[in-house]
Amino acid sequence: MLITRKFHFSASHRVYNPALSDEENFRIYGKCSNPNGHGHNYVMDVTVAGEVNAETGFVMDLSEIKLLVEKEIIDKVDHKNLNLDVDFMNGILPSTENIAVKFWEQIESKINAPGRKLYSIMLQETINNSVTYLGKK
Amino acid sequence: MLITRKFHFSASHRVYNPALSDEENFRIYGKCSNPNGHGHNYVMDVTVAGEVNAETGFVMDLSEIKLLVEKEIIDKVDHKNLNLDVDFMNGILPSTENIAVKFWEQIESKINAPGRKLYSIMLQETINNSVTYLGKK
Amino acid sequence: MLITRKFHFSASHRVYNPALSDEENFRIYGKCSNPNGHGHNYVMDVTVAGEVNAETGFVMDLSEIKLLVEKEIIDKVDHKNLNLDVDFMNGILPSTENIAVKFWEQIESKINAPGRKLYSIMLQETINNSVTYLGKK
Amino acid sequence: MLITRKFHFSASHRVYNPALSDEENFRIYGKCSNPNGHGHNYVMDVTVAGEVNAETGFVMDLSEIKLLVEKEIIDKVDHKNLNLDVDFMNGILPSTENIAVKFWEQIESKINAPGRKLYSIMLQETINNSVTYLGKK
Amino acid sequence: MLITRKFHFSASHRVYNPALSDEENFRIYGKCSNPNGHGHNYVMDVTVAGEVNAETGFVMDLSEIKLLVEKEIIDKVDHKNLNLDVDFMNGILPSTENIAVKFWEQIESKINAPGRKLYSIMLQETINNSVTYLGKK
Amino acid sequence: MLITRKFHFSASHRVYNPALSDEENFRIYGKCSNPNGHGHNYVMDVTVAGEVNAETGFVMDLSEIKLLVEKEIIDKVDHKNLNLDVDFMNGILPSTENIAVKFWEQIESKINAPGRKLYSIMLQETINNSVTYLGKK
Repeated sequence: MLITRKFHFSASHRVYNPALSDEENFRIYGKCSNPNGHGHNYVMDVTVAGEVNAETGFVMDLSEIKLLVEKEIIDKVDHKNLNLDVDFMNGILPSTENIAVKFWEQIESKINAPGRKLYSIMLQETINNSVTYLGKK
Repeated sequence: MLITRKFHFSASHRVYNPALSDEENFRIYGKCSNPNGHGHNYVMDVTVAGEVNAETGFVMDLSEIKLLVEKEIIDKVDHKNLNLDVDFMNGILPSTENIAVKFWEQIESKINAPGRKLYSIMLQETINNSVTYLGKK
Repeated sequence: MLITRKFHFSASHRVYNPALSDEENFRIYGKCSNPNGHGHNYVMDVTVAGEVNAETGFVMDLSEIKLLVEKEIIDKVDHKNLNLDVDFMNGILPSTENIAVKFWEQIESKINAPGRKLYSIMLQETINNSVTYLGKK
Repeated sequence: MLITRKFHFSASHRVYNPALSDEENFRIYGKCSNPNGHGHNYVMDVTVAGEVNAETGFVMDLSEIKLLVEKEIIDKVDHKNLNLDVDFMNGILPSTENIAVKFWEQIESKINAPGRKLYSIMLQETINNSVTYLGKK
Repeated sequence: MLITRKFHFSASHRVYNPALSDEENFRIYGKCSNPNGHGHNYVMDVTVAGEVNAETGFVMDLSEIKLLVEKEIIDKVDHKNLNLDVDFMNGILPSTENIAVKFWEQIESKINAPGRKLYSIMLQETINNSVTYLGKK
Repeated sequence: MLITRKFHFSASHRVYNPALSDEENFRIYGKCSNPNGHGHNYVMDVTVAGEVNAETGFVMDLSEIKLLVEKEIIDKVDHKNLNLDVDFMNGILPSTENIAVKFWEQIESKINAPGRKLYSIMLQETINNSVTYLGKK
């Protein structure tokens, strides 16, 4: 059984690699590397896999996931600049893939418990683009 | 190949466990345990896995899935109270997880056939909360 | 200039007129008059018309609308039974039209101010059905 | 007859009034005034009112609206910072209301023609917040 | 008070004016004039304006609108070719604007009644393109 | 890590098997076999599985997927008739399942590379019906 809670946040970022020249950055990232940044309304689906608890009827209380993810992720990134304002993104190129991996690291140990574990983080950057991280194999 | 048909129904429920006290129920289920119930527009995705039939070009006719699910599930739960009005939910705590399991039991044997089987039931309770049941392992 | 804030709430109701017989109620409201009720995820758009304040750049702060509507409406109806649990719906047939009118009465005087006024309340009961109340002429 | 073309763009901004102190800005705009900015996926509906041309069956070719709005607005704001990168937003507080007014000024004279005129610009900042500008009275 | 019922149908069409040359048609309609046609999933919102009936709580029963529009429009156009298969579109250039006008003519007299009248037909051809017909002035 | 790019196209088709009689076709495909065809706004999700490149932060540049899929698929099917206008659909019954398989064949070899491979093609024909092809086992 998989259970999923959806989240929304708005943030700005500049996608560029400081180890490369501005020309190289523009060649790879195009308009996403504009110096003054741009932003998105991100949508995130956090999915937990587990067994249904016979007493509660829940795999995990979705309200508990909500509080946990809001505290560990949303409060730290919403209405922020992902390059400058978020400690756990420090030094990380804010591609959608990398953001999803860092989000996973923020919550995995707090969600995993006997009978359940973090299954996936889907992160949608625009209505056309999204990534789904399933953890390390 | 997976094929999916989407369904909608509206129902009310009260999420509470009669084996527990009202205080315990409120502690676990919060406002979802309000005595007079509340309700949702549920969205359900029924997914069947199988091989494409060379003559018809179909894994299974989606109209056939539509008729089957309407008869076995939708007609029994739409505009109903899930605690009181649905025979196959009798005595079942109507968490989204439990509803998905009971829906699976209603249709699995009627969908499974050589070359295809029921793959998943995704049940969305609100725009933020959903579960996906993949059957017993 | 019109500004709009969207809200979501989940509630149950039974659409029936106690002045009529059960048969009459079923003839008019069909499955919506089932005795044990059913429910919906309602979506509501609250729209305010006004002029843009030169200093703030706002017609009205949407966060202010959010707090006001949550206090006066959402907290009173979310995860509730509209026939039994909501004081301002007491004795009111909970058709979508009537709910929209009662919601309007709850907030109109608190939104109207020099340079702005409540313009419309759009209330969506299902993905197919909605009403828009524009106030008394 | 109204005809509408939908557009999407992603941009960052900081909502603050340089004439006010940082404390005043935070009191009015909250997290929207964070110094390093944040961003959104904006959705815009451009609506033109007019009569149907008997020969073409169109009020105005929606492809023409698409090219015009992409040239005059989208190419200038997509993946940009609305405070720093957009000439026609220079010195303008980038509230959703003010952005809609400036967008209107960019295209009104190019859309208006005998038998048709710009009717509204709907600008959605998040899935919950939007404004609709109908022009000066 | 406005009430709205949403409908979906799928149809094919070729947008071209037989009074013009193929070159002229291609210049005006581009890929929409391809000889073998193309198709869409149309979305339609039918909106009725009126007063709330004190006994029923309805402006008009939305189920009644559903049955009427399915009989007069949807059953005639769904999974059909709008140039060839629909009697009331005979000789009409199937632009979205013209389709909306013909749909209006199909249902106006059957919806209008004391206390209510047809207010608008919104017809969406793609997720980006739509028209709204408000009737003759 | 999975990355997904969404696409839209509009096309017409007639679902019928020329090896069968018209009666057989109607029995199997119903209104989908109407002689003059009908059409849809298709939505397609192309998903690629792979590892994140340490330098770029990408599994694969989503812009590259966009250009590739537009060239190999969208430009060939958008605003076309899938029975008559598309060379790679020649002689193929245009069921949603078969379309997804042919689309897969168009792009698989151009997407697969060390560290990444085509994972799935989700093709939605209407808001209720979709298929997901995961390749040959």
